[in-house]
Amino acid sequence: MEAKTPKASKSIMTDLVLPSETNPLNNLFGGELLARMDRAASIAARRHSRRIVVTASVNHVAFNRSIPLGSVVTIEAKVSRAFTSSMEVYLDVWIEDRESGECIKANEAIYTFVAVDETGRPVKIPPITPESDLEKERYEAALRRKQLSLVLAGKMKPSEASELKALFE
Amino acid sequence: MEAKTPKASKSIMTDLVLPSETNPLNNLFGGELLARMDRAASIAARRHSRRIVVTASVNHVAFNRSIPLGSVVTIEAKVSRAFTSSMEVYLDVWIEDRESGECIKANEAIYTFVAVDETGRPVKIPPITPESDLEKERYEAALRRKQLSLVLAGKMKPSEASELKALFE
Amino acid sequence: MEAKTPKASKSIMTDLVLPSETNPLNNLFGGELLARMDRAASIAARRHSRRIVVTASVNHVAFNRSIPLGSVVTIEAKVSRAFTSSMEVYLDVWIEDRESGECIKANEAIYTFVAVDETGRPVKIPPITPESDLEKERYEAALRRKQLSLVLAGKMKPSEASELKALFE
Amino acid sequence: MEAKTPKASKSIMTDLVLPSETNPLNNLFGGELLARMDRAASIAARRHSRRIVVTASVNHVAFNRSIPLGSVVTIEAKVSRAFTSSMEVYLDVWIEDRESGECIKANEAIYTFVAVDETGRPVKIPPITPESDLEKERYEAALRRKQLSLVLAGKMKPSEASELKALFE
Amino acid sequence: MEAKTPKASKSIMTDLVLPSETNPLNNLFGGELLARMDRAASIAARRHSRRIVVTASVNHVAFNRSIPLGSVVTIEAKVSRAFTSSMEVYLDVWIEDRESGECIKANEAIYTFVAVDETGRPVKIPPITPESDLEKERYEAALRRKQLSLVLAGKMKPSEASELKALFE
Amino acid sequence: MEAKTPKASKSIMTDLVLPSETNPLNNLFGGELLARMDRAASIAARRHSRRIVVTASVNHVAFNRSIPLGSVVTIEAKVSRAFTSSMEVYLDVWIEDRESGECIKANEAIYTFVAVDETGRPVKIPPITPESDLEKERYEAALRRKQLSLVLAGKMKPSEASELKALFE
Repeated sequence: MEAKTPKASKSIMTDLVLPSETNPLNNLFGGELLARMDRAASIAARRHSRRIVVTASVNHVAFNRSIPLGSVVTIEAKVSRAFTSSMEVYLDVWIEDRESGECIKANEAIYTFVAVDETGRPVKIPPITPESDLEKERYEAALRRKQLSLVLAGKMKPSEASELKALFE
Repeated sequence: MEAKTPKASKSIMTDLVLPSETNPLNNLFGGELLARMDRAASIAARRHSRRIVVTASVNHVAFNRSIPLGSVVTIEAKVSRAFTSSMEVYLDVWIEDRESGECIKANEAIYTFVAVDETGRPVKIPPITPESDLEKERYEAALRRKQLSLVLAGKMKPSEASELKALFE
Repeated sequence: MEAKTPKASKSIMTDLVLPSETNPLNNLFGGELLARMDRAASIAARRHSRRIVVTASVNHVAFNRSIPLGSVVTIEAKVSRAFTSSMEVYLDVWIEDRESGECIKANEAIYTFVAVDETGRPVKIPPITPESDLEKERYEAALRRKQLSLVLAGKMKPSEASELKALFE
Repeated sequence: MEAKTPKASKSIMTDLVLPSETNPLNNLFGGELLARMDRAASIAARRHSRRIVVTASVNHVAFNRSIPLGSVVTIEAKVSRAFTSSMEVYLDVWIEDRESGECIKANEAIYTFVAVDETGRPVKIPPITPESDLEKERYEAALRRKQLSLVLAGKMKPSEASELKALFE
Repeated sequence: MEAKTPKASKSIMTDLVLPSETNPLNNLFGGELLARMDRAASIAARRHSRRIVVTASVNHVAFNRSIPLGSVVTIEAKVSRAFTSSMEVYLDVWIEDRESGECIKANEAIYTFVAVDETGRPVKIPPITPESDLEKERYEAALRRKQLSLVLAGKMKPSEASELKALFE
Repeated sequence: MEAKTPKASKSIMTDLVLPSETNPLNNLFGGELLARMDRAASIAARRHSRRIVVTASVNHVAFNRSIPLGSVVTIEAKVSRAFTSSMEVYLDVWIEDRESGECIKANEAIYTFVAVDETGRPVKIPPITPESDLEKERYEAALRRKQLSLVLAGKMKPSEASELKALFE
């Protein structure tokens, strides 16, 4: 299978924050943002693999900045690294100020998807060749995250997590 | 006020067609597509004007191609022409085939928005300077559509609709 | 096929404006009204044709009056003219004042539907015989709108649009 | 306060059954029908009282006939009797067969609403004068239902429920 | 079939009141609460019967206390009595005060469900053996309610409604 | 502030998987599950702190088992550890087989919430005293996760992450 670039899977979802999606402080509910990011990430994963994809895990999401009612929110999702049949999708979330038009980074998140056939069995997917510096950095970190996730799930011994161990040396 | 380009207001909304949004033929309901286009168009209008915007009219929507359940749909909205306080927003809708990744044009639509202040009163907005050939063509046509809409509403005499009359000569 | 009257397809949808359906000015979102009108119009089209119907186009919608949160909104839809397999549906939208009970006309809209069989292929539908003066007027105008739509789509030469040309003479 | 007729409060809500509203047998979920009936009934109660109204109780709902996906459902609500500040609203639910156009009675339901002021305190409302035979019958039965509800809630002794006792004599 | 206890079917649904679910007084809409209770009750009915279940009727719901926006609402549903293929489900609704953590009883409701096979035909279900005093009381009352419902529907003569007549003696 | 137990914050949300919440394989969408878990976790966090709470991060979610349409899903959320103003909430997700009634563990997830006052500023919350063995284990692991999260965010040097380093020794 020929390698693809992260850019080829880039998916952009710009939408409004409606009143039904806010918490008592009038900011976007964490859960609604998680649901939107899942849809955006699944489109990126599907663009990379051209297969049915299912969410395998949410690796990390930090809600750094609250997103007020009425905001224009843009979610940008790109596949950051592909393994045999799983993909890491990296999401950047931006809020746009109505008056200044300025865009502020609100959140980052990492989701993992698995490509499957019509019966739900995992299938092989193309590898990724990162292009920009940021894409390369995320590509490298993806392996560490995969090892970490295996260690946390008890499926890999910490001593075998070479990439991860290097972090603490 | 300084003129802006259509590109500066471009808004992209990529999302999935969920089961709850389909008609008995398992295609996206017209009404659901209209609601999504309204949100995408309002974001473009807001990016152009940096004001609160309200939908003033839907000028024309043709559902040329049905959009099946599970599709990835991309709506691209750009302000095509600005008048004193109203803007025409032109929308292109694309469906993406999961297996080939090919994008097919599914629909076009034209919405009109008005920029208002916090009390709902119309406010002045910047003019538009079209750049590409397609943008120029849509910019020209916008005036004909405005005249047509005034004629149909009985607010302009057909004889004064200079741009429109030219069409029939 | 025997002709039917517009009244035979009349469909009434009265419902509330809920908080999740409002824009930053606390009025009903244009997109939500478009979605409701699409459902009401599709019921009228179905009543006329007794077939599966799909939205073909939205011909014109003008949002003349904003509809505040908590309003009772009534959408009345009637088939105004039937062509071979397509129908024009005319919608009137009313808001009801809670205290006075008075009904105010808020919007008008025109949708076009096509009747199809189970495989999505267009089927023949009964013609319309308008009864009231308003129905007759809308029936006449429907032909002009059809010609206009064909001209705008480049499928009819302006010089052949007899009904339309008459408008500008 | 002048009496009003049930007809003056009549509210009609015609809408489709969408895929997201169905149970595993592909029929409309009971809960979704209850929510729609509540909205329709609240509009009738509001038309009678011209006040804010809140649901006080659901007196009886029998789901006699299941309503399949894609159906056109019509809910008709009318105030059947008014007490000091509460109203009984009677609902009839109809399903329309797409092919024959025939309407079949699917359900009946009775809701009670209370009219309140802006602070939530009950206010006086106009009495009802039933006109048709069916309206008169429902008007009479409303008193029995009110007594029954008071008895079941332990707020009236069965021996004082004159209208109700008559039923068993 | 072996008898089961009400506890074995107990179902707990704790959720928030979101802005989109409120009426003009900023309290939970009656219709939304009815829909949630229907889902909770259907889960209890399904736990008792291990079958597909459909809502047969709503016997009584009293909205004693309004439930404000942002509340934590807990719905507890238990099968109170089983007949041949139908079950009565008793629901208690609690609101939790955020600051004191205190739980207040807001509503009670009684729904009836029927267990059916894949084709929608009623099937036999296990009987119920109540344990606590409250469960025994509700078990007894269930028979009176069933007779009442049959009498109101004209399917039982008042003179045969032994349990019900006893109430008025 | 007096310590509380994890049990005191336990929140149970049992609900159905509706057709609108499923992916092309007819299983619950990852994003919908994330949204439900966020609501359940926020209720647990609120029960512990008796404050307004906002989602700070999603630490790890693994979708081990797909959840089919029509399933009964139970989400159980408990605060596993409290820091100054933030709390870790541990979620267990169970699916219930309709026929056997058997419950299968489908997923686990960890969310972090921050307690805030009406202006959105962090406030102090009570500490946690774990009781069961599982609660103690999760309490211990919470500190490692907090250090990991600080390291990943570049707010703590790996060499200072004592608990974390221990894992790799």
